[in-house]
Amino acid sequence: MAATAGQVIVCKAAVAWEAGKPLVLEDVEVAPPQKMEVRIKILYTSLCHTDVYFWEAKGQNPVFPRILGHEAGGIVESVGEGVTDLAPGDHVLPVFTGECKECAHCKSEESNMCDLLRINTDRGVMLHDAKSRFSISGKPIYHFLGTSTFSEYTVIHVGCVAKINPLAPLDKVCIMSCGFCTGFGATVNVAKPKRGSSVAIFGLGAVGLAAAEGARVSGASRIIGVDINPSRFEQAKKFGVTEFVNPKDHKKPVQEVIAEITNGGVDRSVECTGNVDAMISAFECVHDGWGVAVLVGVPHKEAVFKTHPVNFLNERTLKGTFFGNFKPLSDLPGVVEKYMNKELELEKFITHEVPFSEINKAFDYMLKGESLRCIIRME
Amino acid sequence: MAATAGQVIVCKAAVAWEAGKPLVLEDVEVAPPQKMEVRIKILYTSLCHTDVYFWEAKGQNPVFPRILGHEAGGIVESVGEGVTDLAPGDHVLPVFTGECKECAHCKSEESNMCDLLRINTDRGVMLHDAKSRFSISGKPIYHFLGTSTFSEYTVIHVGCVAKINPLAPLDKVCIMSCGFCTGFGATVNVAKPKRGSSVAIFGLGAVGLAAAEGARVSGASRIIGVDINPSRFEQAKKFGVTEFVNPKDHKKPVQEVIAEITNGGVDRSVECTGNVDAMISAFECVHDGWGVAVLVGVPHKEAVFKTHPVNFLNERTLKGTFFGNFKPLSDLPGVVEKYMNKELELEKFITHEVPFSEINKAFDYMLKGESLRCIIRME
Ligand SMILES: NC(=O)c1ccc[n+]([C@@H]2O[C@H](COP(=O)([O-])OP(=O)(O)OC[C@H]3O[C@@H](n4cnc5c(N)ncnc54)[C@H](O)[C@@H]3O)[C@@H](O)[C@H]2O)c1
Ligand SMILES: NC(=O)c1ccc[n+]([C@@H]2O[C@H](COP(=O)([O-])OP(=O)(O)OC[C@H]3O[C@@H](n4cnc5c(N)ncnc54)[C@H](O)[C@@H]3O)[C@@H](O)[C@H]2O)c1
Ligand SMILES: [Zn+2]
Ligand SMILES: [Zn+2]
Ligand SMILES: [Zn+2]
Ligand SMILES: [Zn+2]
Repeated sequence: MAATAGQVIVCKAAVAWEAGKPLVLEDVEVAPPQKMEVRIKILYTSLCHTDVYFWEAKGQNPVFPRILGHEAGGIVESVGEGVTDLAPGDHVLPVFTGECKECAHCKSEESNMCDLLRINTDRGVMLHDAKSRFSISGKPIYHFLGTSTFSEYTVIHVGCVAKINPLAPLDKVCIMSCGFCTGFGATVNVAKPKRGSSVAIFGLGAVGLAAAEGARVSGASRIIGVDINPSRFEQAKKFGVTEFVNPKDHKKPVQEVIAEITNGGVDRSVECTGNVDAMISAFECVHDGWGVAVLVGVPHKEAVFKTHPVNFLNERTLKGTFFGNFKPLSDLPGVVEKYMNKELELEKFITHEVPFSEINKAFDYMLKGESLRCIIRME
Repeated sequence: MAATAGQVIVCKAAVAWEAGKPLVLEDVEVAPPQKMEVRIKILYTSLCHTDVYFWEAKGQNPVFPRILGHEAGGIVESVGEGVTDLAPGDHVLPVFTGECKECAHCKSEESNMCDLLRINTDRGVMLHDAKSRFSISGKPIYHFLGTSTFSEYTVIHVGCVAKINPLAPLDKVCIMSCGFCTGFGATVNVAKPKRGSSVAIFGLGAVGLAAAEGARVSGASRIIGVDINPSRFEQAKKFGVTEFVNPKDHKKPVQEVIAEITNGGVDRSVECTGNVDAMISAFECVHDGWGVAVLVGVPHKEAVFKTHPVNFLNERTLKGTFFGNFKPLSDLPGVVEKYMNKELELEKFITHEVPFSEINKAFDYMLKGESLRCIIRME
């Protein structure tokens, strides 16, 4: 039992006070975990584009002041009432979607959209009492995605915390708590390309490249990377991407370019950009008769997906997924083991590393399209 | 060998001279079948809403003068060069989509969209020589969907003609050549509801009621029929539909009404209306996490399917299908056998019958929403 259990912990957290303004490292009070909650000491966190969207709050609802962050690894400091599956000292990955293990989704083989703990981007408080566990001089600071990992300590519902092998290096496997699993699962769990098939990946950030890894391990013979940032292409070769298309290099819509080079369209596509036009292209570039497109990117709140219904009638399939359809508590420990067994590689996704005090650099790297993942060291 | 083989046959056909004007029974010349074609004596044909759309030519390209019709049963009169799979006297069902048996679609287990013989609504001529086989005083009359069954004799590519059990009553099984298989297959081959699940059917015409039959034989426990024509509801009870929703009875969108009565949405939905708003509702009314919606209706050529991409991200699936994903030559004989074995019922779909001379009545019945299928007797 940590000496801090049951006490308020005062620690450093990076607070987003306003949309688009640099985060400020503040001393925050972190209340003890309540019923079915755990308090976690975060050791490493990384930046995902979803954090950036809610920080910019251009296409998303503004909720400020807020502690962002949802891709991380840490150690349980203390647990609240009723928590039996986790104990202080456990190595864990927080996840933005959870498992109550009792609802229809948790019981379904197909869904990971737990009724209780599914992603909620607008809620800034804990489920138990609709209050925040973070405060500065008593004034609440809002949570983000139930995780708020840009803090030395955070409080999370136990259903959103996956216990993993304590030997796994948290500075690497932290990226499995969102980006890696999201992209990899979108391909292997949802798009399910057959051996020898062609797969287009829209957006070659960490999520898209993890989707490409999924295509590679599924035995896809052609992996076509699509990005408007040409500097992604060199990097993407390490991830098994075999061909590149920059929509900006072509006058015709990219779906037509892809249809031409693939004799009618790809077998599968996975969209990892968040841009609705890329979503439409990703759908329309799959082959009629059997093509399957999967949406992963988080869209602008007013985005509208538009297509001619005949594109569906021609026997194309469109789906979407959160967290690559992995069930976070049930599946994540096994994915971590695959890394431990060297079946999966994470190092190549990690292009930058900064101390917590320089967290704003991680935002710069992502906004400039320079980084895949930037690890933020808390100590 | 019929005495007419190799000769032009002069017979009655119902010609659509102009958009929306009553068909006119004319004496037409029907040329002999060319390479890979067969000439068929049509005994019974029925009217599908797709014929009506192309006759109205409001939301579809006008191609006139044209001989419509694509749901029918007949007997092979003569065959062209290279035809080995069919012979004069064979009982057959013409289908608007075909099987070349050599293209990637024909070889795929998932697709029935044959590269060579897939549905083509704008082509009015034969593939072999880009000419029509129909003429009046030497002036060509266009084909429709490669079938043009509103004629005593028609010429069709052999890949669009399914040979069936000669004992099958053509005045019943003719509706399997489009409407029945389209709806039934959309459910059993594409939506694939599990036993005990809930299914919404949009549009309770023959196609939608065949989709309902598919849900019933799949063991669905709730089959929710949605139609704007309340007179459909009484009829639909015979098809296992358990509940009815008329969008006009509600102020809120029908997808919300369905979500309310099903605790979040149906497991599957099948859209059989051709109306793009119904397509959107059919998609948005399926449950997040696992819901699958299937589009069947033929849309207006300028229709746009619009939805918020988060509706996909929430793990819904949207697909479309032609002819219920049945491969016409490979699968249709087996579906006919199911009727012969009394596993399927067709009689309840047939609400009207007229002689060929009164074919325009079939259009009236459908436009008024009175008929499911009206059989047109050629003799
Ligand atoms: N569904 C989920 O569970 C889930 C989880 C994590 C992230 N996401 C989303 O996945 C997306 C990718 O995240 P990331 O962290 O890899 O971001 P990233 O910024 O590192 O990568 C996105 C890439 O997409 C490219 N891009 C942007 N617009 C494009 C367009 N129109 N066409 C082609 N390429 C385009 C960018 O140049 C960039 O390389 C984001 O939208 C993020 O919010 C979704
Ligand atoms: N995909 C294919 O292979 C294929 C094959 C055959 C028919 N179709 C299409 O299937 C559809 C149904 O054909 P059918 O012959 O059964 O037609 P039908 O006219 O007999 O039935 C259509 C039903 O839909 C109802 N409807 C219309 N708009 C509606 C709305 N907005 N909401 C709810 N209900 C609505 C009508 O009242 C009617 O009862 C047509 O669009 C037809 O073109 C597609
Ligand atoms: Zn993320
Ligand atoms: Zn749950
Ligand atoms: Zn039809
Ligand atoms: Zn073919």
